[in-house]
Amino acid sequence: MEDSLEFIPGGVTSPVGFQAGAVCAGIQGKTAGKPDLAILTSGLPVTAAAVFTTNRIQAAPVLLSRRRLQGGRVAAVVVNSGCANAFTGEPGLADAAEMAALAAERAGVSAAEVVAASTGLIGSRLPMESIRAAIPRIVLRREGGPELARALMTTDTVPKEAAVRVGGRFILGGAAKGSGMVHPDMATMLCLLTTDAAVSPDFLRAALRRAADLSFNMISIDGDTSTNDMVLLMANGGAGGETITAASRDAALFQEALDRLCIRLAKAVARDGEGATRLIEVIVKGAADGAEARRAARTIVASPLVKAAVHGNDPNWGRVVAALGRSGAAVEERRLSLYFGDVCLVKDGRVLPYDAGRAAGALGGDEVVITLEMGLGEGTATAWGCDLSAEYVAINSQYST
Amino acid sequence: MEDSLEFIPGGVTSPVGFQAGAVCAGIQGKTAGKPDLAILTSGLPVTAAAVFTTNRIQAAPVLLSRRRLQGGRVAAVVVNSGCANAFTGEPGLADAAEMAALAAERAGVSAAEVVAASTGLIGSRLPMESIRAAIPRIVLRREGGPELARALMTTDTVPKEAAVRVGGRFILGGAAKGSGMVHPDMATMLCLLTTDAAVSPDFLRAALRRAADLSFNMISIDGDTSTNDMVLLMANGGAGGETITAASRDAALFQEALDRLCIRLAKAVARDGEGATRLIEVIVKGAADGAEARRAARTIVASPLVKAAVHGNDPNWGRVVAALGRSGAAVEERRLSLYFGDVCLVKDGRVLPYDAGRAAGALGGDEVVITLEMGLGEGTATAWGCDLSAEYVAINSQYST
Repeated sequence: MEDSLEFIPGGVTSPVGFQAGAVCAGIQGKTAGKPDLAILTSGLPVTAAAVFTTNRIQAAPVLLSRRRLQGGRVAAVVVNSGCANAFTGEPGLADAAEMAALAAERAGVSAAEVVAASTGLIGSRLPMESIRAAIPRIVLRREGGPELARALMTTDTVPKEAAVRVGGRFILGGAAKGSGMVHPDMATMLCLLTTDAAVSPDFLRAALRRAADLSFNMISIDGDTSTNDMVLLMANGGAGGETITAASRDAALFQEALDRLCIRLAKAVARDGEGATRLIEVIVKGAADGAEARRAARTIVASPLVKAAVHGNDPNWGRVVAALGRSGAAVEERRLSLYFGDVCLVKDGRVLPYDAGRAAGALGGDEVVITLEMGLGEGTATAWGCDLSAEYVAINSQYST
Repeated sequence: MEDSLEFIPGGVTSPVGFQAGAVCAGIQGKTAGKPDLAILTSGLPVTAAAVFTTNRIQAAPVLLSRRRLQGGRVAAVVVNSGCANAFTGEPGLADAAEMAALAAERAGVSAAEVVAASTGLIGSRLPMESIRAAIPRIVLRREGGPELARALMTTDTVPKEAAVRVGGRFILGGAAKGSGMVHPDMATMLCLLTTDAAVSPDFLRAALRRAADLSFNMISIDGDTSTNDMVLLMANGGAGGETITAASRDAALFQEALDRLCIRLAKAVARDGEGATRLIEVIVKGAADGAEARRAARTIVASPLVKAAVHGNDPNWGRVVAALGRSGAAVEERRLSLYFGDVCLVKDGRVLPYDAGRAAGALGGDEVVITLEMGLGEGTATAWGCDLSAEYVAINSQYST
């Protein structure tokens, strides 16, 4: 079917016309052997849009990329893990610019059309000698998507990539990283997205912002947010077809494909939260409005007490109610219903007797769904996060040393 | 010296005219033997003020006490641990009122002048039969302060009480509980305060609000806030002397004594955070204004990544900077200086080489002090919290079951 959306194996190089490659530059001392430096390129400047962290401390690559994105066209992105190049001042900005220039040379594009992204430790300079030696060794190819996804990883335990095909018309692909310092209200991690659809710059920006709001801005791992977060979407038009604008018949279709791709990647990030053993999905229905639903869902999924209860299979629903109450969303106790999986614990404000085994079972799977029906209006939202384990503490007690 | 402030051993019954008593009512199944139900009384109605949780879900005792405080006079407070009596609807309100009536009878005061406080599991009804049997067994006495402090405890590992004497003039005493669901911007836990100073109702309210803003509203354990939090201050005038009003020569002295008492109790709560092994103090100086300083200090002390780094003696100062950046406070990298203890890691935006051993040592003590100088204005604030340990997760994975 012409309009069908279908997830296919693949990632950033699944849309036609994109190439990627990665190399181990030794930036991540600990994980030597894994690639940690990568380039993604469309070979020529294409329409691009991005959303960035709202943190007031912005890493050098964020400052550089934000400036270069103003033109709305990007030919390549160079990305490294192991060093955030954040809080590095003017020298850090020069490093980011040099890294972009080296990548431009490798990809055969103009330096001014290359953006950069970094993730890792804050406050250290990039090891530029290693990077100068490594970039020329990067081989750009159609099959390079998976190695780029691996190069993004820091404390991630699995690479995160996905691709969706829309009928025979166009493809969207993406790769993401993120497993600590992840929280709503930000472009919460690194994510590179590509498509071979032709899309107008204005619509591309609007579509990306909407998709990020439904996906990356609805996940939380630990309430912290990074200095480096960035979601970049490049559209090269390689699939042919008319340029999609907000007024196009295909606008809704493109938006839906992008939403679903971003949600899939965001859930992969949440599921791979540092120390996580399961994905938590919080669905809020019937809030006074959409903004209140979002606020409620995000506050609950970010609550350390809720996360720890899920980790322990403890159906302590009172913590969900307490988090809801402090979210700022309007609540009426006697209208509230609450479910763990399909086990109803509260119905219209009344606490129901429940089978403790079934309730604990609803928390025990790989994916835990907590649903609230607030009975106040039409606002709905879904947020994703993960449980809180002792392993999270272990990982984060020993990161820099 | 007439105006000297001096901490003395004691608590809520240190000021003249207050009596307390506690009993084990078996509300906390797990910790049987420990008192879990207590009364504090001044024997007759006295001037009182309180601050309550800002959570939209408010426990029955909060609703009851808020209403009764409108009169500005309280004769006694009854408090239990082990059951929050929250999300219990009308029946829960009736339970709170009955508990207050039983306490009134025991204390020989009017039921309408008794307030109630509860802490523990959300969503369960109070075991009223046990409470009816237990309250008449409570012995009210001058020496009852310590057992009241113990009765407040849930996951607290130590009772928290303090008293401060102002010259020979008057005494302030207090007891607090709180070790989970503690976060800024709320009256963050249960705290009962007493004084034998005579204080006007208006000034008592203003003084309590100011002291709470400097103390309980500046601590964070896990970012969660409770449905039950309440700080109550009763002033019986038993020490004699003129009534202190905002215009009195003694107003500043009373305020300072109250501030210091509240800060001492708030720090005791932060230090006893669930699973905590040390107290973290974050001092922000030179912020654009006081509100930004508060926001910055509270965001940093609440950051799970900062807390985990301190736990691991890991001088990962980049996490402090990242938390500062997302706090919303204005930041200029090149004006920022940062210290762990007396080890300077960043000076005017430049990252300094540091002795890793000394920096780790600064994180290793019982009290860790993180200082930021922002170089933007006159705003200063101090916030307190605790490190994040695997024990926090263990405690909160197994609370209700």
